[in-house]
Amino acid sequence: MGLSGLSVREDAVGNIFGRWDGYKPGLPAVATGSHIDAIPYSGKYDGVVGVLGAIEALNVLKRSGFRPKRSLEVILFTSEEPTRFGISCLGSRLLAGSKVLAEALKKTTVDGQNISFVDAARYAGYMKGEDDLSNVFLNSGNYSAFLELHIEQGPILEAEGLSIGIVTAIAAPASIKVDFEGNGGHAGAALMPNRNDAGLAAAELALAVEKHVLDSGSIDTVGTVGILELHPGAINSIPSKSHLEIDTRDIDEKRRNEVIEKIHQSAVAIAKKRSVSLTEFRIVNQDPPAISDKSIVKAMEDTSKELNLPHKLMISRAYHDSLFMARISPMGMLFIPCFKGYSHKPEEYAASQDIANGVKVLALTLAKLSLD
Amino acid sequence: MGLSGLSVREDAVGNIFGRWDGYKPGLPAVATGSHIDAIPYSGKYDGVVGVLGAIEALNVLKRSGFRPKRSLEVILFTSEEPTRFGISCLGSRLLAGSKVLAEALKKTTVDGQNISFVDAARYAGYMKGEDDLSNVFLNSGNYSAFLELHIEQGPILEAEGLSIGIVTAIAAPASIKVDFEGNGGHAGAALMPNRNDAGLAAAELALAVEKHVLDSGSIDTVGTVGILELHPGAINSIPSKSHLEIDTRDIDEKRRNEVIEKIHQSAVAIAKKRSVSLTEFRIVNQDPPAISDKSIVKAMEDTSKELNLPHKLMISRAYHDSLFMARISPMGMLFIPCFKGYSHKPEEYAASQDIANGVKVLALTLAKLSLD
Repeated sequence: MGLSGLSVREDAVGNIFGRWDGYKPGLPAVATGSHIDAIPYSGKYDGVVGVLGAIEALNVLKRSGFRPKRSLEVILFTSEEPTRFGISCLGSRLLAGSKVLAEALKKTTVDGQNISFVDAARYAGYMKGEDDLSNVFLNSGNYSAFLELHIEQGPILEAEGLSIGIVTAIAAPASIKVDFEGNGGHAGAALMPNRNDAGLAAAELALAVEKHVLDSGSIDTVGTVGILELHPGAINSIPSKSHLEIDTRDIDEKRRNEVIEKIHQSAVAIAKKRSVSLTEFRIVNQDPPAISDKSIVKAMEDTSKELNLPHKLMISRAYHDSLFMARISPMGMLFIPCFKGYSHKPEEYAASQDIANGVKVLALTLAKLSLD
Repeated sequence: MGLSGLSVREDAVGNIFGRWDGYKPGLPAVATGSHIDAIPYSGKYDGVVGVLGAIEALNVLKRSGFRPKRSLEVILFTSEEPTRFGISCLGSRLLAGSKVLAEALKKTTVDGQNISFVDAARYAGYMKGEDDLSNVFLNSGNYSAFLELHIEQGPILEAEGLSIGIVTAIAAPASIKVDFEGNGGHAGAALMPNRNDAGLAAAELALAVEKHVLDSGSIDTVGTVGILELHPGAINSIPSKSHLEIDTRDIDEKRRNEVIEKIHQSAVAIAKKRSVSLTEFRIVNQDPPAISDKSIVKAMEDTSKELNLPHKLMISRAYHDSLFMARISPMGMLFIPCFKGYSHKPEEYAASQDIANGVKVLALTLAKLSLD
């Protein structure tokens, strides 16, 4: 298995495309794919199933003697996880034409060691002499359909004994970076009334995020403080700086944005109450949700029925490269069950049989869409 | 300036002693000193003033033609700050005869990179072939007095326009390490009711520390969460582990221990409420306060009067090597003003004139105690 037999190209940021030409190569192609990068201390199925599954789906179709009408493409998206540069879905976001991101990558994006995105890309053999990242953008008519196979990253399919989830919408994510600054000082000598502890401001804001999410009253609203860092980080030093990164998501963009507004109001109020400075409250991204294409959803449903695989329509609460591909192509996603819904931790697992079922639905749906 | 002219010895953990023999070398000596290590991102006066000041005090006495009766010693204590091994006042605590520490250093103490204390000490040229750290312990009758010159690390002397603070007691410190563990998971896919977020448990406990300290009703009670770490530390991952390090101090040991008990009760209650595990609640040290020796206090007061330096009796809210030296020797401490009371941050500063005043009082007090 591999990309052999496909014509392969890489773009300037490391997205990889493997193409199987159809007998009408002038028609917009049908694409499928996902990512293979991971967050620290995570599992090995998130993303990878959709890449290896896509390659296997094309191999199965080849072995069966199928001849595509529209070309079929496998895409390996670069940097879906925000691990290094703090930007999620970097590859697909850029493919979808984000001018803001193209500018940021060229000028301001650095990793935790202050290495610029441009230097890192060049070191890895990309962005050779290219100053304009807009050549990575894909045109809206480039694909007639984009499909992504992925583990559910939630417990529903396993709990309900279903093989296939057909995604009708992807929840809208937003990321916020917050910095507080106080005077710090010695943990023994500075008395409590004289303190403005940036760490306690961060602790209060983390709890406020949870409160505002729960106050929304909606099960579909989530909010997480995954990063909370204190400076200088010594047991006998009052934190003089704190840094939080907040993730909020919803299938309702307006409701999510109201939660963000409340988080902002809390950050301002906490800073005032504790006499710390709110030196940054930056909404890093605030993406709209994506709705799956109706005809692709129907094709996936029909295929699941033909294969006698129990399935249901569902929402993706995690977001994916599909969220951004939906901006330039009709989009659909397939979920398969995963152990207890675990994801982003080492216990993440999907059974071979479930992966095989997902690949079957993917392959047959790609075949149908190719002939469409 | 330096240790030249003194007979110098080092012990097995890197405490350094410079001795000026008196004309009655068989009498217990008078010692003075402090530390030269620092926490990250800190200042350059904490500790250093008491080491360079001690050396200068002995030099001044030599230049003046003074002949000590009791020998005078300068001590440079190793690892006063807990930076590397998480143990504060490592050197003086061991000199004062802590068997618990001697055992821990030999068997269980490691730094953040899992390097053992023994390996680090040997790499630095200490603990050569020695298996028993009890040879570092000093006898109770070894010194007739121990004095430490130090910046106040608080705002009182500067605010009141005083040159010298004479310490009557050192507040009792305690350090606690806490770990929470939950299931972690994906920040999008795991819905709020299904979460047990170790990071939010840590945030709640940090605020509980502040609450219990304030509830004590005493200005002398302080509590600080200087370290709060989340694992895995990714924006799109619910924290599965959190680690806090808490510092509490008081001049009243009983009141401080009541605060620790309340913090423990909160940790248990928060773990239960949030369905996380409290995998560690460890009181790393819980030291009693130290009371200065009355005759040393009187000698410092008399000297300050003779030098026409405005002074006051005060409490040390920060703790020092003196806290542990008080276990084996009559103890006294001298404070000098520092800029705005700042300490443990780069803005820490003491004026040359204030340092000179402190050295004068130290030198004359050492001379008196030497002749005593």
